[in-house]
Amino acid sequence: MTPDERSREKYASTALLTDKYELTMLAAALRDGTAHRQTTFEIFARRLPEGRRYGIVAGTGRFLDTLPHFRFDDADLSLLADFLDTETLAYLADYRFAGDVDGYGEGELYFPGSPVLSVSGTFAECVLLETLALSMFNHDSAIASAAARMVSAAEGRPLIEMGSRRTHEMSAVAAARAAYIAGFSGSSNLEAQRRYGVPALGTSAHAFTLLHTSADGPDERAAFQAQVDALGVGTTLLVDTYDITAGVANAVAIAGSELGAVRIDSGDLGVLARQVRTQLDELGAPNTRIVVTSDLDEFAIASLRAEPVDSYGVGTSLVTGSGAPTAGMVYKLVEVDGVPVAKRSSHKESHGGRKQAHRLAKSTGTIVEEIVHLADRPPAESAGLVATALAHPLVRGGQTVTDDDLKSARKRVTAGLHSLPWDGLKLSRGEPAIPTRMVDATRQA
Amino acid sequence: MTPDERSREKYASTALLTDKYELTMLAAALRDGTAHRQTTFEIFARRLPEGRRYGIVAGTGRFLDTLPHFRFDDADLSLLADFLDTETLAYLADYRFAGDVDGYGEGELYFPGSPVLSVSGTFAECVLLETLALSMFNHDSAIASAAARMVSAAEGRPLIEMGSRRTHEMSAVAAARAAYIAGFSGSSNLEAQRRYGVPALGTSAHAFTLLHTSADGPDERAAFQAQVDALGVGTTLLVDTYDITAGVANAVAIAGSELGAVRIDSGDLGVLARQVRTQLDELGAPNTRIVVTSDLDEFAIASLRAEPVDSYGVGTSLVTGSGAPTAGMVYKLVEVDGVPVAKRSSHKESHGGRKQAHRLAKSTGTIVEEIVHLADRPPAESAGLVATALAHPLVRGGQTVTDDDLKSARKRVTAGLHSLPWDGLKLSRGEPAIPTRMVDATRQA
Repeated sequence: MTPDERSREKYASTALLTDKYELTMLAAALRDGTAHRQTTFEIFARRLPEGRRYGIVAGTGRFLDTLPHFRFDDADLSLLADFLDTETLAYLADYRFAGDVDGYGEGELYFPGSPVLSVSGTFAECVLLETLALSMFNHDSAIASAAARMVSAAEGRPLIEMGSRRTHEMSAVAAARAAYIAGFSGSSNLEAQRRYGVPALGTSAHAFTLLHTSADGPDERAAFQAQVDALGVGTTLLVDTYDITAGVANAVAIAGSELGAVRIDSGDLGVLARQVRTQLDELGAPNTRIVVTSDLDEFAIASLRAEPVDSYGVGTSLVTGSGAPTAGMVYKLVEVDGVPVAKRSSHKESHGGRKQAHRLAKSTGTIVEEIVHLADRPPAESAGLVATALAHPLVRGGQTVTDDDLKSARKRVTAGLHSLPWDGLKLSRGEPAIPTRMVDATRQA
Repeated sequence: MTPDERSREKYASTALLTDKYELTMLAAALRDGTAHRQTTFEIFARRLPEGRRYGIVAGTGRFLDTLPHFRFDDADLSLLADFLDTETLAYLADYRFAGDVDGYGEGELYFPGSPVLSVSGTFAECVLLETLALSMFNHDSAIASAAARMVSAAEGRPLIEMGSRRTHEMSAVAAARAAYIAGFSGSSNLEAQRRYGVPALGTSAHAFTLLHTSADGPDERAAFQAQVDALGVGTTLLVDTYDITAGVANAVAIAGSELGAVRIDSGDLGVLARQVRTQLDELGAPNTRIVVTSDLDEFAIASLRAEPVDSYGVGTSLVTGSGAPTAGMVYKLVEVDGVPVAKRSSHKESHGGRKQAHRLAKSTGTIVEEIVHLADRPPAESAGLVATALAHPLVRGGQTVTDDDLKSARKRVTAGLHSLPWDGLKLSRGEPAIPTRMVDATRQA
């Protein structure tokens, strides 16, 4: 299979992952001729999830992978024929996005109002992408934003994503990807390895130990022996099925002092990690690592900083965005044939006009402000501050023009976290780490 | 395409939607011969999301649809060859689930400890299904449980699911299905209509009104005219892009008194609904309905009960489970070759042995208690109470033996909500509506 075929396989039938109203709007706009007006839509978040100090952009790569395959096949069209006229169906049969897309690099920090994606083309070609683009950015950014807080809290200790079972089976794959972008070491999810090369990790569950039960009762040693026979002494043995102290003793008795790691999945993880570390050292297994799992979130991870924990497995809180399962981004029409447009409505002000953003930093690299300005009006230089443009060309005339990959995105997260003022890394609730200033943007109020 | 081909298309490559450790456990168990032991795994929730009084089982139908297609193809096997031995790969090449599945009907109420799904077969065939089954039940049940609270709060007024853009693009399809099971009238999502027959709904967004802007300024009437020309006067016009009073006047001026509905998407919805109702009546459009949308959840829906609202559109809070985005269900090994097994660990007690459940109700139909008991030991009859068995055969020898469908599931939700004691329908935080009693279950502590 060529890369292109593999990509097509992954994204079959994306065109119907769409809200019906995009198609009824298209039909009405084709009928009165407005469908062909030149437009720009922007994706941004009006605010960060409550108390969060930054967000991490994710979903960009998935969106770009999908875009060339957002086509309506005969089966799609026959469903749509129930409510669409012939002209609209003919338009859809030939549809492919031929416009331009600009956006923040995947993994970049974002703040309230940051124009993380800008889509330009005719109204017809842009309006159809609303639901799919938002689904990807809202889900993936929510996960990456939560994951980055966990990475920051772990202070260099490796994190493993293992929440597939707590979310929709396809969200799970995207969540593994988003966590990897944010700095996780790998994921339990095999499909994430197949699609995105995210390292797949994992060894065994309590079921495997329980399986080694006979009429005579449980036999933890038999389970450990079977695992070591199959996976080698470098494996991770789960030691808390019955009694942790006995479990650790059994683990070292079976695997020897070269045992890779033990996993603890219940109880007071800090206390247990200390006990187990002492026990392992006394058993002559000082290199055996300790992996903890069990309802961890960024706060629990931070609280374990002083403990002899070697790595963390994170499930539920990762895939649910640790309290913020969606990034709340919107896709708004901001310009029609060069005229800025914006809805007027209480609490939902939008800023008309196609925008770009620069981020200002001190010479030390610490960021101080984000400036969002009309696309053709860059801000004046600020004395002593370095201004970096945040948007990059992603698509031109329907063709992807970036070769950004997960490795670049991971670097961007690392750099972004490093650039935050110290307050920005606090886990407690607070304001965005830097203010966003809207400059020259036409506000239709 | 035959239904079977369509089904296969929908569920391509599900076998890798799996955690790696299921396959390493399989390898170890094949090696020591325990892989072929007869086992039962059960899915249950240790508790309901905080303060919830009931849960709704969903995901069953999707799981049964997927099961026959959970197969490892050559591409899957070549990925797995990186870490699996020849014997394991050979087993996977021939894999298909040939065991039995029993479970609660989709749409049934569940409570803490309810054994909503029971999977029996060899360890090898059952262990591989853990991640996929849990992903489906945890996601879909979380959505259906939140949706049922909204349906209950709406007291008969129609609800439309429109949250696709706030969640992963494939979760969106499953969320639309789960909301429909819980009693929603339809969804904005087209793929949910294609796959599941969920009625797709929707007409237009603010972008369509804004599109009708020229150098002379906005032209709301032109937008309404275009929409009415394309979709007829029965359509729903979005009236809050600029000024709601002017918007309503424009809507009736263009569409006439037979206008289907107006939609309000911002502001104080109760106040606005009253104003708009008065205005519509005065304009001679008493049959034009009022649809409200804008960050609604079950509490906002309940607070609008006294207002002249005809239907609700619900987005973010629906697809995120209204504060509980996952149902927290687990998949636990409870029996090996007839011997009950259970992990011993603080706060994570499981009850060993294969279980069934009966629900007790008064003669009026109001439920009073759920009894979970070992499969071969039904509880004694309770005087004056009616006991209903909750589990049904779903799969026998790998073949689906139920013809349950979305219609049955919808009926089950309606009946379930009707059977709750009055306290159970309260939206406020509280205890589960009925207690769960574990009878005769072997508790290994």
